Amino acid sequence: MNFSKRITSMQESPIRKLVPYAQGAKAQGKKVYHLNIGQPDIETPDSFMESIRSFDEKVLAYSLSQGMPELIDAMINYYKKYDMDFEQDDILITNGGSEALLFSIIAVADAEDEILVPEPFYTNYNGFSSAVDVKVASITCKAEDGFHLPDKKTIEEAINPKTKAFVLSNPGNPTGVVYTAEEVQMLADLAREYNLFIIADEVYREFVYDGLGYTSFGNIKEVEDRVIIVDSVSKRYSACGARIGSIASKNKELMKQILKLCQGRLCVPTLEQIGAIELYKTPEDYFESVNKEYEKRRNIVYESLNDIPGVLCKKPTGAFYVNAKLPVDDAEKFTIWMLKEFDVDGETVMLAPSEGFYATKGLGKDEARIAYVLNENDLKKAMNILKKAIENYPNRTI
Amino acid sequence: MNFSKRITSMQESPIRKLVPYAQGAKAQGKKVYHLNIGQPDIETPDSFMESIRSFDEKVLAYSLSQGMPELIDAMINYYKKYDMDFEQDDILITNGGSEALLFSIIAVADAEDEILVPEPFYTNYNGFSSAVDVKVASITCKAEDGFHLPDKKTIEEAINPKTKAFVLSNPGNPTGVVYTAEEVQMLADLAREYNLFIIADEVYREFVYDGLGYTSFGNIKEVEDRVIIVDSVSKRYSACGARIGSIASKNKELMKQILKLCQGRLCVPTLEQIGAIELYKTPEDYFESVNKEYEKRRNIVYESLNDIPGVLCKKPTGAFYVNAKLPVDDAEKFTIWMLKEFDVDGETVMLAPSEGFYATKGLGKDEARIAYVLNENDLKKAMNILKKAIENYPNRTI
Repeated sequence: MNFSKRITSMQESPIRKLVPYAQGAKAQGKKVYHLNIGQPDIETPDSFMESIRSFDEKVLAYSLSQGMPELIDAMINYYKKYDMDFEQDDILITNGGSEALLFSIIAVADAEDEILVPEPFYTNYNGFSSAVDVKVASITCKAEDGFHLPDKKTIEEAINPKTKAFVLSNPGNPTGVVYTAEEVQMLADLAREYNLFIIADEVYREFVYDGLGYTSFGNIKEVEDRVIIVDSVSKRYSACGARIGSIASKNKELMKQILKLCQGRLCVPTLEQIGAIELYKTPEDYFESVNKEYEKRRNIVYESLNDIPGVLCKKPTGAFYVNAKLPVDDAEKFTIWMLKEFDVDGETVMLAPSEGFYATKGLGKDEARIAYVLNENDLKKAMNILKKAIENYPNRTI
Repeated sequence: MNFSKRITSMQESPIRKLVPYAQGAKAQGKKVYHLNIGQPDIETPDSFMESIRSFDEKVLAYSLSQGMPELIDAMINYYKKYDMDFEQDDILITNGGSEALLFSIIAVADAEDEILVPEPFYTNYNGFSSAVDVKVASITCKAEDGFHLPDKKTIEEAINPKTKAFVLSNPGNPTGVVYTAEEVQMLADLAREYNLFIIADEVYREFVYDGLGYTSFGNIKEVEDRVIIVDSVSKRYSACGARIGSIASKNKELMKQILKLCQGRLCVPTLEQIGAIELYKTPEDYFESVNKEYEKRRNIVYESLNDIPGVLCKKPTGAFYVNAKLPVDDAEKFTIWMLKEFDVDGETVMLAPSEGFYATKGLGKDEARIAYVLNENDLKKAMNILKKAIENYPNRTI
């Protein structure tokens, strides 16, 4: 009675596996600043709960497998602001961005096929792929380049006949990189030349700073039949617990195929969809204030990091993450050390070590992801503790 | 740019694929009695919405990947009534019974492995398996036997080295069969002899009629390490739109493996879990009244069917389905004919043709599933229409 190879070979979530150490620190009475998870502290718009509270059907029935038409309509309107023009059957509502990714990968890749992913990447791309026997091949991006893409030739060399799709997040998790219009165009060109899909995880679309422009893969006309856009209300509206995601594509035959998977799991929760309809109607000024807040935090984290000798970190311009090279032997050991053995006045910090964000063995060992999801004061305290921790860590490398 | 073989080979939901014909009938002004889907009309207990309405956190945050401890506690108490004794880490909360099935199949079977399923079966067993390259092998059960299992030797012959698990629903969808204690014991014995898991879909556990006893696979001590129990609030509490399911198993190593899949999709919706906690605390007398209602309906359907010449249907004793042999050439054609060309005073009926519930080609062509999820009056009208439809169908076989 054995478990499947695909499940035993699946790696544990590198973001969640250090949780027991955090629990241990708390049990010792330490306060832990969580810079390790992307759980924003921004308030969820009230409209979400208000609409759910007024639900008064006597029977909580199945919804449609593709999602509620009203929610799809609200998303169609949302996309128009970004010059994307979708129809009802171009959008499927999913259980979070997670299910959107899983279904997209199943739809384009068979067992033993490959997806090509710029690394470091959102670790669950790897998890979902392992679960369905798809191999993750990677395009290595470097801290020194602010995690922008390498040149076309380098990417081309990573493509082989098994490659079925690019999968990437833009703005990037864990890097905070925002790809330039030229980078987006380069991947689009490669997708056409090598007949690939592009699974574009754009759940952080709004979180772009410094007045930078943003190019969605949904804006490149000539690849509209090969682009699959993954979205979610989790980060966009600080509603991680709603688990409402979506797949959008103008490839109608692809959408018909993915609909079969949606029918298999019957539907997405009715109430959460009712709430999400209102979220997608949130006025634009919501993002203005939220972005101002995140940009301020980004500045705190970026400036604090550059104030620590030996840290390498180019200024990230999107999402709410920084992936920094630290002057330590091993970021996982360092994180455990901070939780077990270090504190400043009874307070310490938890990071997400980056090794698990790479497919290439050995990379990311001295890197960690910092999520700037705490308020300004807490963030300043946390960064100060991090600085002192690096100064005091026995195995620092400078 | 091709789609994966696994998605193109996945069959469309046989329950949902005739929906366009129903829409057509409605567009013509016909009333359609839906006997085709398992959407109960029973009211969801008020406690569900009441608890959700009182949620007042400012941020709708991620829940734990394994599910809320309070919900798991409520389920532990629920299982005690059935003499099943689970601990916190024996239960994982999932996005409906659907995700519970998908994760269980991924955990026990690799690509090209097989699961062994009594047919006719819940069609999504097939859907999920195709999506992850697992083959469905079947044990044929017959209308003449009330869809009870064949003898041990027949089942044994269907087991081969690729077989990893039995997957079955008990009480049965689409058959309404409730396996006897001897049948449950026989499968348990086979699972031990051939080193198999048992994925026991027991979402209809409460819906057993005629005062019959019920044996859960969770009651067979000697297979407790190989039993995976799938549950859901959908049918139990008429809360299909909540999408709260679960996996329960005393195999702690297995649960650790499946937890990795749960971590990959982060969590199940927070609000729906809050509602489900209250559902699992629903007093027992809820089931007494609900069961009385379903038993009455079962009797109406069973007696009406046996009043139609040429119909074969043994009395089903559980769930809320009947799978009947009809005197027609092809139940799918017959269903389409009822929707397109037949009515009694502007009213017609929709069934779920059973061919898609079989893995063996050719079986089930003259069978259909009837879900008795309508009130007494509507059900009587619908069964009367069905009788007249069979009398008038040009391709009936008697």
